[in-house]
Amino acid sequence: MITLYHCVSARSFRPLWTLEELEIPYELKMLPFPPRFLARGYLEVNPLGTVPALIDGPTFMTESAAMCQYLAERDPAKRLVVKGDGSRYGDYLNWLHFGEATLTFPQTLVLRYGFFEQSQRRLPQVENDYRRWFLARLRALDAVLTESDYLCGDQFTSADISVGYAVMLADYLDMSSQFSERVGGYWKRLQAREGYQRAITAQYKAATSQGVSPIAAPLTGREQA
Amino acid sequence: MITLYHCVSARSFRPLWTLEELEIPYELKMLPFPPRFLARGYLEVNPLGTVPALIDGPTFMTESAAMCQYLAERDPAKRLVVKGDGSRYGDYLNWLHFGEATLTFPQTLVLRYGFFEQSQRRLPQVENDYRRWFLARLRALDAVLTESDYLCGDQFTSADISVGYAVMLADYLDMSSQFSERVGGYWKRLQAREGYQRAITAQYKAATSQGVSPIAAPLTGREQA
Repeated sequence: MITLYHCVSARSFRPLWTLEELEIPYELKMLPFPPRFLARGYLEVNPLGTVPALIDGPTFMTESAAMCQYLAERDPAKRLVVKGDGSRYGDYLNWLHFGEATLTFPQTLVLRYGFFEQSQRRLPQVENDYRRWFLARLRALDAVLTESDYLCGDQFTSADISVGYAVMLADYLDMSSQFSERVGGYWKRLQAREGYQRAITAQYKAATSQGVSPIAAPLTGREQA
Repeated sequence: MITLYHCVSARSFRPLWTLEELEIPYELKMLPFPPRFLARGYLEVNPLGTVPALIDGPTFMTESAAMCQYLAERDPAKRLVVKGDGSRYGDYLNWLHFGEATLTFPQTLVLRYGFFEQSQRRLPQVENDYRRWFLARLRALDAVLTESDYLCGDQFTSADISVGYAVMLADYLDMSSQFSERVGGYWKRLQAREGYQRAITAQYKAATSQGVSPIAAPLTGREQA
């Protein structure tokens, strides 16, 4: 049985969504955000204090985009791994990494220096630099969507989950009005998926039953603004 | 024939090192740093303007850590892919992502706000925040090296290249004095590899013959300090 440590709508949503797409059984352990400060015992599970953490027998992982690939490969039918003659395999790996390293990390700077830090440490310059960075990089997503419905052709893969989470987070950061029509349409397609909806429901139910606020973790810091 | 676009000692060193480890033939196209401003024609190759870009027939990639896995899988003998019963496959994927998303992105903030930005836009707060962040995350590397010489046991894999590049960049950022003894020893082991040394030689020769400064790209901004 897989165990996933998760904060509502944090990066750990990526493996949660993947698990729900593949209907793999799992135990979801909810943490308040940020766990480093609000759930000190979690440091015994993951000394980095970051979410997600995924445990699958002897396997321990902390990188959400890596989990998307790991879980997709673990599925006997490999439904979320790119199919075909192999010429799209590079695309698949590239988008898996792009979702986190190129799209989500910049967003964490918007969150940190725009919302989470105490007021005297907030830096509008950095927030603006990385909002611009994110939107500039999003053009690569727009370009690929001129050719197909998903990132690796017309097949939905776990790379769409890696990138889709970054789009979801951008929506939470009130950036959806700056999405191109194609990116907006892609985001609607992703939200319409049963796997996505099951993941949203699963985190809400688990948060409620485990006494954790069901407000999205990326939004919690904004209340202090 | 693979084509790799590269700036001296930038992230594109990852695929260069992988190519040299595997002795795969390639063409190395050197760019001045940053290419977005100094080699505008490059935007026709990669509209993002980032390095690396790797072209392999119909495959086009921009994410350096993804290239480490791609090239390792492309090798018929799969010498840099993790071996064994599969229990280390999650470690392998996790470290591939960790090298870039968790270790290198913070370093780019040190570079940007500590060196590359013009003086009135430099932000010592951000530089310090992310130097601390990097060193805190490096503890995970120290922990795994208590158990083995490399990240996935005693076999060198392309995940070591992903993480090894972040260690190399930290050395350029004068952070090696803050490495633990184990991390320092790991960095020495990596530098002693023939593949690493061939990659260093290849970029020096290509830079010189193509009229590009052989000074490491991450160091160029520092001269303006």
